[in-house]
Amino acid sequence: MSDQAPPGTLTRAAIVAVGSELLGTTRLDTNSLYLTEHLNGIGIDVVGKAVVGDDRVACAHVLRSMFAPVDLLVVCGGLGPTDDDVTRDVVAAVFDRPLAEDAALTEHLRARYAARGYPGTMPENNRRQAMVPGGAFVIANANGSAPGLWLDVEGRVVVLLPGPPRELRPMFTALVDDRLRARTDGSSVGRAVVKMTGRIESQVDQLLQPLYAEWAAQDPAISATILAALGQIELHLSTRHRVAESARACLTVAIGQVLATFGDDVFSVDGRRLEEVVGGLLAAHGLTVAAAESCTGGLMTSRLTDVPGSSRYVQEAVVAYANETKVRVLGVPADLIAAHGAVSEPVARAMAEGVRALAGAGIGVGITGIAGPDGGTADKPVGTVAVAVAAAGGTRARLFRFHGERELVKFQASQAGLDMVRRLLTTLASHASVR
Amino acid sequence: MSDQAPPGTLTRAAIVAVGSELLGTTRLDTNSLYLTEHLNGIGIDVVGKAVVGDDRVACAHVLRSMFAPVDLLVVCGGLGPTDDDVTRDVVAAVFDRPLAEDAALTEHLRARYAARGYPGTMPENNRRQAMVPGGAFVIANANGSAPGLWLDVEGRVVVLLPGPPRELRPMFTALVDDRLRARTDGSSVGRAVVKMTGRIESQVDQLLQPLYAEWAAQDPAISATILAALGQIELHLSTRHRVAESARACLTVAIGQVLATFGDDVFSVDGRRLEEVVGGLLAAHGLTVAAAESCTGGLMTSRLTDVPGSSRYVQEAVVAYANETKVRVLGVPADLIAAHGAVSEPVARAMAEGVRALAGAGIGVGITGIAGPDGGTADKPVGTVAVAVAAAGGTRARLFRFHGERELVKFQASQAGLDMVRRLLTTLASHASVR
Repeated sequence: MSDQAPPGTLTRAAIVAVGSELLGTTRLDTNSLYLTEHLNGIGIDVVGKAVVGDDRVACAHVLRSMFAPVDLLVVCGGLGPTDDDVTRDVVAAVFDRPLAEDAALTEHLRARYAARGYPGTMPENNRRQAMVPGGAFVIANANGSAPGLWLDVEGRVVVLLPGPPRELRPMFTALVDDRLRARTDGSSVGRAVVKMTGRIESQVDQLLQPLYAEWAAQDPAISATILAALGQIELHLSTRHRVAESARACLTVAIGQVLATFGDDVFSVDGRRLEEVVGGLLAAHGLTVAAAESCTGGLMTSRLTDVPGSSRYVQEAVVAYANETKVRVLGVPADLIAAHGAVSEPVARAMAEGVRALAGAGIGVGITGIAGPDGGTADKPVGTVAVAVAAAGGTRARLFRFHGERELVKFQASQAGLDMVRRLLTTLASHASVR
Repeated sequence: MSDQAPPGTLTRAAIVAVGSELLGTTRLDTNSLYLTEHLNGIGIDVVGKAVVGDDRVACAHVLRSMFAPVDLLVVCGGLGPTDDDVTRDVVAAVFDRPLAEDAALTEHLRARYAARGYPGTMPENNRRQAMVPGGAFVIANANGSAPGLWLDVEGRVVVLLPGPPRELRPMFTALVDDRLRARTDGSSVGRAVVKMTGRIESQVDQLLQPLYAEWAAQDPAISATILAALGQIELHLSTRHRVAESARACLTVAIGQVLATFGDDVFSVDGRRLEEVVGGLLAAHGLTVAAAESCTGGLMTSRLTDVPGSSRYVQEAVVAYANETKVRVLGVPADLIAAHGAVSEPVARAMAEGVRALAGAGIGVGITGIAGPDGGTADKPVGTVAVAVAAAGGTRARLFRFHGERELVKFQASQAGLDMVRRLLTTLASHASVR
């Protein structure tokens, strides 16, 4: 529990999903994302989450340990009528609240059963859903038979919700407004993600050390996490404040500090992906882009066209996998390939210039590389990729060496192509110079 | 621990992911799915999983409690070089194994840093990754700097792995063969996935009812789950047996029963993706394929080139987003577009035939559609996609109407293009007819 919060205030939550089906490889617990979003929105942090099967011993163990460091435990699932629905029994045992049948709930279940037109009387096992732990408040379920339950446990709270999202979501939204918001300190959590290219994780971390210290010391404090994602570094910032606008303002200042430190290496501060940022820049400059893709096989253009409205700046592209295509369609001189090899800066340049001319585009991109697993040499190992960007002002080329398997090399190569276009457009003084 | 298993045998596992970013709403722990699949494959059940933030106290708490009821604990993430990578420290404290620097690891890290061509010497914080808990076995990481660690804890095992999937996966696969399999009871869970197109989930389910009953009654029983994946239906089969070959034989019979029911709608019984199956057929027939892609923006060709060795059958493709490109590059008659609209079977046909001629390919594919969110009409709503396949024997076209958002429409359209190529190649009596 937070030091400042008055007793009974809820600030830290854990979420437990109960159900053996969530431990296989085909289903993921997604309720926790919904719950986290809504808990964060009222200033409650989620500090842990767990999935446990329909096993009484394991479930008791996990509930006890996940509840220990928090003041709110949300348990989802395992409230159905069958033997393998263990949540109700386990909660009663763990928190020493013996179950008793709630006569009104039983009547409600019988009425619901009859109303749905099932034959005969309600099966007796359905009465399990009317069993309530001592002192629990019953949360109505408009979309199913299992009610939710709210237990006050020495100033802390345990909430049980049914697993199906269409039942859980409306119940939880109502609960936030009804009982949970009244138990918070009134603050909210703001989050931001800064994405950058051209840096490695440890370098970003070292450069951010002074800011970490400053952010930790200020009020409200900002917490920061660095993530190395594929072809980019992400800095995740979060802060909690009584007033949502203050949390936002505080993050805006922090983002400004990161921008001052990393400059043009930052490409996104609002969650946008690189292909969205590049598309926005192309549209703003009124330019089209055409790619000649060898090792990426069309991936860069496919990513560009993932963005709605991309037909404004993507009209055409060529996948030139074969050298013969590079020569015949793109006009790359055959002797250039013979002299430097297909994976080389000169060939990438010729591809970029060739496709720019062919498509009549503002910007041409050429990507040629060795995606693997075969085709590498001592001189040009798998992962070697040449990328060139051609515009009215001239052509730039770079040779990269990426790590990882075939699809990772392809992705990083497409990322490099997009990033070179971004940097070109970012540094343009005026539109005219590249038209 | 299982009653029958000899001491030291691993039968029950828990998985813990460490990382505050996994507690937000933007990222999910997906490593646990990979680990579960491979643990199940050697007969180890996963009985619980948890996610905890980069908080030493909470992490220690969760590791201790998740380890209590199992004999194998797999911890993912939090092994990086920065202050918020807490796993190594917490494990050392929880299991009372003080950390010491491994000089060989430090040298390895320095060499790796230098080899990547970064400027200057390795940042000192990287040395944290060379700290090893007492008695731990170091697991080499071919794709990153953080090594994995294996601790024997009184006959039970704790394994630490780096969080990035491209590092974790190969390390874990090697670990299964190297150290884990030797510690199991020798039973194995056999799994198979049958993938099909051209069917809907409820129809597949109904047709399979008699087989479900037969599979459940036999020894060993086969359990089956149907999943509607994007653009395909998957039937997941699993069975557990002491002898791996028996489990496999039993699945082979079941797969034969499914094939007898669904025929050519089944495209994969060995896990292969559609692009791999199509690539295999193209290679077997000695044919090349060239696509003219409008709404898919290169996605179909990118998927084909995800497969190693695809340069045997992919040489060239054209992204023809603009109508002008369809006319100028692919030779689609402008009046055809005027008469039928760009999204129509006649235009898809002309695109397929045009790109086949342009590239000199055995098979041409044309894809033109409305990916959305804009561009739909009452007549041709968002999701309308025309796909054509041209070969020596003639051209076939089909009009589809897909549901979902832009990227889902793109994927389903690329899936339809690949599937039409697959069905063409599957029905070919001989090579000669399409050359």
